[in-house]
Amino acid sequence: MNQDYIIPNNWSIIEEGFDAERVKSSESLFSIGNGAMGQRANFEENYSAETFQGSYIAGIYYPDKTKVGWWKNGYPEYFAKVLNAPNWIGIEIEINGENFDLNACPEVQNFKRELNMKEGWYHRSFVATLQNGTEIEVNVRRFLSLDSDELGVINYEITPLNKDAKIVYKPYIDAGVKNEDANWEEKFWEPLDVKHSENDAFVVARTFKTHFNVATYMSNSIFSNDKNLNLSPVNVDDSAEKVQFLYEVQVAKGEKSSIQKFGGYTVSLNHENSELIAGAQKVIASAKAKGYKTLLQEQIEAWAKIWEMSDITIDGDVKAQQGIRFNIFQLNQTYLGKDSRLNIGPKGFTGEKYGGSTYWDTEAYCIPFYMATKDQQVARNLLTYRYNQLDKAIENAGKLGFTNGAALYPMVTMNGEECHNEWEITFEEIHRNGAIAFAIFNYFRFTGDYSYIPEKGLEVLIAIARFWHQRATYSTNKDQFVILGVTGPNEYENNVNNNFYTNYLAKWCIDYALEQIEKVAKEYASDYSRIIAKVNLDKAEMAQWKKVADKMYFPFSEEHDVYLQQDGFLDKELVKVNDLDKSQRPINQKWSWDRILRSPYIKQADVLQGFYFFEDHFSREQLEKHFDFYEPFTVHESSLSPCVHSIQAAGLGRMEQAYTFYLRTSRLDLDDYNKEVEEGCHITSMAGTWMSIVEGFGGMRVKNDTLHFEPRIPEQWEGYSFKINFRNQILQVSVASNETKFSLEGTKELTVYVNGNAVLVEPNTLVTV
Amino acid sequence: MNQDYIIPNNWSIIEEGFDAERVKSSESLFSIGNGAMGQRANFEENYSAETFQGSYIAGIYYPDKTKVGWWKNGYPEYFAKVLNAPNWIGIEIEINGENFDLNACPEVQNFKRELNMKEGWYHRSFVATLQNGTEIEVNVRRFLSLDSDELGVINYEITPLNKDAKIVYKPYIDAGVKNEDANWEEKFWEPLDVKHSENDAFVVARTFKTHFNVATYMSNSIFSNDKNLNLSPVNVDDSAEKVQFLYEVQVAKGEKSSIQKFGGYTVSLNHENSELIAGAQKVIASAKAKGYKTLLQEQIEAWAKIWEMSDITIDGDVKAQQGIRFNIFQLNQTYLGKDSRLNIGPKGFTGEKYGGSTYWDTEAYCIPFYMATKDQQVARNLLTYRYNQLDKAIENAGKLGFTNGAALYPMVTMNGEECHNEWEITFEEIHRNGAIAFAIFNYFRFTGDYSYIPEKGLEVLIAIARFWHQRATYSTNKDQFVILGVTGPNEYENNVNNNFYTNYLAKWCIDYALEQIEKVAKEYASDYSRIIAKVNLDKAEMAQWKKVADKMYFPFSEEHDVYLQQDGFLDKELVKVNDLDKSQRPINQKWSWDRILRSPYIKQADVLQGFYFFEDHFSREQLEKHFDFYEPFTVHESSLSPCVHSIQAAGLGRMEQAYTFYLRTSRLDLDDYNKEVEEGCHITSMAGTWMSIVEGFGGMRVKNDTLHFEPRIPEQWEGYSFKINFRNQILQVSVASNETKFSLEGTKELTVYVNGNAVLVEPNTLVTV
Repeated sequence: MNQDYIIPNNWSIIEEGFDAERVKSSESLFSIGNGAMGQRANFEENYSAETFQGSYIAGIYYPDKTKVGWWKNGYPEYFAKVLNAPNWIGIEIEINGENFDLNACPEVQNFKRELNMKEGWYHRSFVATLQNGTEIEVNVRRFLSLDSDELGVINYEITPLNKDAKIVYKPYIDAGVKNEDANWEEKFWEPLDVKHSENDAFVVARTFKTHFNVATYMSNSIFSNDKNLNLSPVNVDDSAEKVQFLYEVQVAKGEKSSIQKFGGYTVSLNHENSELIAGAQKVIASAKAKGYKTLLQEQIEAWAKIWEMSDITIDGDVKAQQGIRFNIFQLNQTYLGKDSRLNIGPKGFTGEKYGGSTYWDTEAYCIPFYMATKDQQVARNLLTYRYNQLDKAIENAGKLGFTNGAALYPMVTMNGEECHNEWEITFEEIHRNGAIAFAIFNYFRFTGDYSYIPEKGLEVLIAIARFWHQRATYSTNKDQFVILGVTGPNEYENNVNNNFYTNYLAKWCIDYALEQIEKVAKEYASDYSRIIAKVNLDKAEMAQWKKVADKMYFPFSEEHDVYLQQDGFLDKELVKVNDLDKSQRPINQKWSWDRILRSPYIKQADVLQGFYFFEDHFSREQLEKHFDFYEPFTVHESSLSPCVHSIQAAGLGRMEQAYTFYLRTSRLDLDDYNKEVEEGCHITSMAGTWMSIVEGFGGMRVKNDTLHFEPRIPEQWEGYSFKINFRNQILQVSVASNETKFSLEGTKELTVYVNGNAVLVEPNTLVTV
Repeated sequence: MNQDYIIPNNWSIIEEGFDAERVKSSESLFSIGNGAMGQRANFEENYSAETFQGSYIAGIYYPDKTKVGWWKNGYPEYFAKVLNAPNWIGIEIEINGENFDLNACPEVQNFKRELNMKEGWYHRSFVATLQNGTEIEVNVRRFLSLDSDELGVINYEITPLNKDAKIVYKPYIDAGVKNEDANWEEKFWEPLDVKHSENDAFVVARTFKTHFNVATYMSNSIFSNDKNLNLSPVNVDDSAEKVQFLYEVQVAKGEKSSIQKFGGYTVSLNHENSELIAGAQKVIASAKAKGYKTLLQEQIEAWAKIWEMSDITIDGDVKAQQGIRFNIFQLNQTYLGKDSRLNIGPKGFTGEKYGGSTYWDTEAYCIPFYMATKDQQVARNLLTYRYNQLDKAIENAGKLGFTNGAALYPMVTMNGEECHNEWEITFEEIHRNGAIAFAIFNYFRFTGDYSYIPEKGLEVLIAIARFWHQRATYSTNKDQFVILGVTGPNEYENNVNNNFYTNYLAKWCIDYALEQIEKVAKEYASDYSRIIAKVNLDKAEMAQWKKVADKMYFPFSEEHDVYLQQDGFLDKELVKVNDLDKSQRPINQKWSWDRILRSPYIKQADVLQGFYFFEDHFSREQLEKHFDFYEPFTVHESSLSPCVHSIQAAGLGRMEQAYTFYLRTSRLDLDDYNKEVEEGCHITSMAGTWMSIVEGFGGMRVKNDTLHFEPRIPEQWEGYSFKINFRNQILQVSVASNETKFSLEGTKELTVYVNGNAVLVEPNTLVTV
């Protein structure tokens, strides 16, 4: 564990004491978001020490000119980046003529941050002594409204403790921001318009190239002891990209002064360009009409609704409880599933790293969480996102020489175009295509909603099957089809031949597509005709696909009785991770790339990822054998690794190991295992944490349209519970060491299986097994 | 063939007619150099259309900050670049008030460029009509002195043809230059000092970071009908980095006016910083004392000496003759072997691409040429260059995790540090280490000078053997040593396992090092003690090496009876190049990288490169089998490919094929096969052209301290001849279709073998076989 300053608490993330060294980490951990926008926990007032400033708007990106050392044919020209958005939270403050800056204060006492996950707000408080001797108590609460997702609220309170104070508030909005990770240090925003009247101000700016228009706004009010002073500001900055107001108040010792700032964005994704300022004015008017207290109350209620459905409780292990809630909270801050144009960025609204918003993480890790904790429309929106980008995926495959409507979905994207530029990933980590097909299967398996397949999914399945058919090559030598030159989920091997996971997924994709074509042909004749005409598919082509699927090669070791991760795996020096000197870890920081590549060390589940997806295809003995063979070589240096291993360890009854993996996934960021939380949180792997409990400890599976459980509990826990939205019925599952309880909302009964035995759950009646 | 505007001529490269489209190509082809400096054939006067300006100084480089998309551990921070040096050739010209610019002239007639390779000068002439109607005839000759390698000479003659003319000459020197290939558009030169007096001027500038100091100088004289007018200039530019003079003359119609400009550099590699200007003044004084005509005469004589030793004549095929002379001329322009700090850059002084100056090209391709056409000290200097950089090669290996004095020589370098940054090359194209050991073997084989090995070479051999010992890993599976994750000479496969060439070379390096250790121990006891103490080597370590060499694995196909290029080669779709649609060629421009990697297509000799180095280890039948297996998959998209294949085709008696490969290597740049000559010429592969004739057609080999020949002749030729400096005896070999003649300079007889039969050659007596 690399840091442990976060105070264990069931419902809040808490930091106590001011430490400049921790500012960037805390800025990540205390980030807030509402699905539409979000920001790091930067201070509102000036701060002159190290900080990573970041505000982000969902769906607003910039195509940064690609930077590479050596250009390869097929690289995209641009890397779509999550944009650092204009700042609306800033409030410069002067106390008795001194600019207030925590870094310049001789003394800071009782510094505390709290991210209240239950109620959805972030609070900061402290007592600071300025260089001029004025002692002030500060309390700041900030939240981003779930109900009105263009609105953010700040309540910034100052009480001078030891003398009267002249306080100057200088709130501002500023579009003059830069991305920390810009490739060429270009500016991404072009200011278009600035407007202000009384306490309200608006800066309209447009992204270069993509031409997203965004109005950033603020509306300020100054209070004395919670009484609105109805002050009017002086305008002290009115440049092309920034507006800053000035309010001056005289505050007696012990008296509480405050500024309330409403701010946020209206964006051209949701408004006409000409209506952006008017839209913002409406948000302000509505917020003012409700007032701060009502807005806060609404926020608490909105988060309560989310928790009602998605909370997981853990008794007897506060760190584990805090971990899972932090994960569920961050996922809900990042993506709420209302808008099929959006997706789940790997850093959410907590940082810029990795650019883009959509990786295969969404399909492989996030969809199960959203399916089970939200209305099924949310998962369907995530599938639709890919359907809407099918044309671009076909275009992308075309750039790599594929034809006839074959699709290769990008490694990372914003608008469907590939924006990754490292050949061994961009061109070769093609298994991502399989995860997208698997998600369609998984969605139907869980929700029972077949309609998605004839409406949209089948076209995606066909395009993906075409890709695999063309990508496999026939080896005369083996008289089988092989897939050469790929990178599997284990990115610590590149350009390998016959990665088992990739080959297996490829075969499955073709088989599944053929099955679904047949089914749609039978049951949805008009969809079938429409699709076949559109994609121009015939029996002869399908027969070609089938040949590839039927004769797919899978590397296998007779000696070890396991499928091989890739053709060359057994030629490696098979020294287990435990026998590796600790000074060599993490290998991705200690070793050069070639050394990593020729080592047997595995970054994240690879063969085992296949066993996770297709558990039913293998026996428990096979799983055990493969787990015992591969896990000892696995360094878990990807945030996506521990969750799959936790689930499989639990399934194999290895609860101590499962628990260790669980802690590692659930507190990855809180305890900063990878020493990089400064850069932002690992959002997508948080869904894996949820899976570790529900699928790992709870043993939940869906088989034949029925929920199955094999509940287990780590010995460190007294009990845990979770809820599942299964086909519009809300089932709560509570597990203790000696029993499992089920209760069901609604009016319809439900039969579930526990360790293979049918259990009838009647609505609103607790069943104990 | 992609262009054919170069006029066939035995001794000159000639272009006729002015075509702006060809300017950049001609700037490359007509480049001049003298080993110490060189430059592209840029016009002296202003030219407003597309041009690639470049002047270069041997050994002067700049460490440009690395640019990559995704950083990998082990990448070097800097990429050492050949620097674009200050311009000394510039002469702005005004004719009757109009700035003279070929691009602005309404008419240009009789435009001709000639690069006279026999005499070592470049000449340009034309008749131009200016916009003001003045018609002028221009003749410009430029050369870089071989005798005084800090001196360049320009004689620029203008004759107004249709009216009197006021001619203004504005010669300048300018350190305000940039590199076209700068990663971050930084400036590389910092001006330090400017000085001028009368007709002479000096700009001293320093490279940032590396702090090479360079004085760029000029000295001008104005002539009328070859009579020095002794004019004094007006100084029109005297900024921090540039000096420009102005001379005005009134010239009558038909009268010849000219400016003679001496210019060049003195550099801190060869002078104290404080002596740079004084050094340049000496060069000027000496040049003035000799005068233009004497300097030109000296140049002609100096080149005559080079040709006397290194010329190859071809009768009956002027294009082939022009090709080989162009290659020999360029090699001598680039590197003359006087200075062991210098090496042979892939673009010489003709362009900037590829950065760095030293690749494995030097050892694999260039050393044979320099050994046979120069004093053996030249090849020894090339070996010493690597010996002097051994510490850096050990440091470089250390960065990749190697220990105990193992060395990995860089893929490309200036000062011994790696400056390449593409993991599959930088970290994995490790066979380069083997070429460096092979060059030591080859040097001794050819020259018989063993002294290099105990003095220097053995330390290099030991460090390289240590590298291979550590780099190989033991495969329990195979019970042999394997070398995983490499890129062979065929860069169209990356990160492959057990590249035959690499494994073979690795084994050979260890065996050869062990042999030489034993020999030095026996015959050079004091060197042995010194070295063993320095490198701390013992019997136990050597026994470990031997185990690796003895149990090295080589992939082999029983079915095809050939060694496999790498473990996975037979899984590829083995479609031959001839069966590939022409629209797909060259694949490096048409295909994405992954497609190239999984294809069977070979960029340059790989297994066959091993057969070239170790011809004696294999039978003719084996060579034939491997040639027939691999050549049909070879696309020859590296400039280094055709020469090796030409040699092997000739050896197998396939003369038509050998001739085709010969033309491709010898006229690669003249005919611009790869459509890229604009960027500069392919210098190192030119040595391969020489090998194609001497080793290919001539069949020259050295076996047991004796020269062997198997002379063959393409049917397109009447005869050809070359000279070999074999152990300080100059042997001339002349081949015709029915006979081969030998003649020998000096006083000692020499026995050579022709097709296996001994032939005694007496000095100064023609022997016909």
